[in-house]
Amino acid sequence: MKENLTIVKVGGAVVEDEAQLSQLLKDFSAIEGRKVLVHGGGRKATKVAEALGIESKMVGGRRITDADMLSVVTMVYGGLVNKNLVARLQANGVNALGLTGADMDVIRSHKRPPVPLLQEGLGEVTLTDFGFVGDVDNVAGSTLARLIEEGVTPVMAPLTHDGEGHILNTNADTIASETAKALAPYYDVTLIFSFEKKGVLRDPNDDDSVIPTITRANFIKYKADGTISGGMLPKIENALAAVDAGVSRVIITLATALDGQSGTTISL
Amino acid sequence: MKENLTIVKVGGAVVEDEAQLSQLLKDFSAIEGRKVLVHGGGRKATKVAEALGIESKMVGGRRITDADMLSVVTMVYGGLVNKNLVARLQANGVNALGLTGADMDVIRSHKRPPVPLLQEGLGEVTLTDFGFVGDVDNVAGSTLARLIEEGVTPVMAPLTHDGEGHILNTNADTIASETAKALAPYYDVTLIFSFEKKGVLRDPNDDDSVIPTITRANFIKYKADGTISGGMLPKIENALAAVDAGVSRVIITLATALDGQSGTTISL
Repeated sequence: MKENLTIVKVGGAVVEDEAQLSQLLKDFSAIEGRKVLVHGGGRKATKVAEALGIESKMVGGRRITDADMLSVVTMVYGGLVNKNLVARLQANGVNALGLTGADMDVIRSHKRPPVPLLQEGLGEVTLTDFGFVGDVDNVAGSTLARLIEEGVTPVMAPLTHDGEGHILNTNADTIASETAKALAPYYDVTLIFSFEKKGVLRDPNDDDSVIPTITRANFIKYKADGTISGGMLPKIENALAAVDAGVSRVIITLATALDGQSGTTISL
Repeated sequence: MKENLTIVKVGGAVVEDEAQLSQLLKDFSAIEGRKVLVHGGGRKATKVAEALGIESKMVGGRRITDADMLSVVTMVYGGLVNKNLVARLQANGVNALGLTGADMDVIRSHKRPPVPLLQEGLGEVTLTDFGFVGDVDNVAGSTLARLIEEGVTPVMAPLTHDGEGHILNTNADTIASETAKALAPYYDVTLIFSFEKKGVLRDPNDDDSVIPTITRANFIKYKADGTISGGMLPKIENALAAVDAGVSRVIITLATALDGQSGTTISL
């Protein structure tokens, strides 16, 4: 019988709103037992970059991380956001430890090679270099499990490293999923994604039409009949992949509903 | 018989100069056995603050850490400087872990109360509030020793926390001394302060006039005859206090001479 572990991923929007953040920290601190917090950075990095006169370069809605922007995300995600979360969790009695992938080599990645992308307007495909963005190669599950067994709560920033001395910018959802998979051999893992809705909705206009459970079987049905579509599809695919890789359940819920009883649960 | 532990404090000037930094990282990585790196932040924080339009407020040559400046030092020291050092040490095969005092509650401090200071020009003493500056209350030696015994090399930023959710700015020399004292019960501690000269000089105009050894006894003599004076006096006083508190030796030396054989050794 494995011990329970709860991994909560919280987005930049929550981190930047004092009322939401303070509730989140209270709820997270109240989670019994072993836990991990993964945070995004969000608009704060863009704001700091703007104030520093660094242009945020975007291609197809996605940010290019050039050397200047890498410095900004390292400052904002690894420093400002991460250390304030750690200090506030400590004040709540949670023995938090801020980590990037470089710390104790917990997440190794490689710089994403240029990606062929259709240039809108031009109608042609060109190679786009997203810059200092890391695709995860390995999460050191045993290192994280050892820290967790010592009573530590890892607080993970969306930054990894390539093992050659370079920090890389990595999507926080990916950090959360890959960490959950790497810890699945050690724990009964519940992965909670905080979301702006109460869960996956049957009717996008009805906030109370939360689908309580999604499995591989009913997902096929929901996809076929159009109940789940658009941007929600890759999220559910990723959640199902995590479940296939041993994560017990993935929950998509409001940042203010981390009790494990609310939202949409994705499981086998 | 205690194991050896080497604590190296490196200043902001070295961290900001790529040639010096790269040599320092090479030399630090080559130190055998257990070790800790403590870094300053230096002018980078002032530069980032300037670029963000935040004024560096100084009183009597000392910086006031207001809320905006606290955000900047948290970004620069805790994020940019710390995480790049960690990533580069990992590339050298050192299992580095970046820490502020908040992480695992390793350094607890309290906000410095306003200090009576003589206002130059005015000739009167007024209370000066240095802002979010932390005076160290406790270093968790057993927590650090446990990490070190697991093969981890702590890389400590000059930031602490008050246990009530606030990061505080703390002098890096103080972090190094207090950490050395807290680890003295566990290890035979050598504390190395990297310095811009080869050591404590007998003749300030002769870079090769390094005093090899300073003890409490010959310090009294050097002080009386004026060999050691000015800004060097408090440095030596602090080093002798660390030695009195159980640190085996304090070495003041060039950042490029961390072999433990160079510089000035302060011991009992």
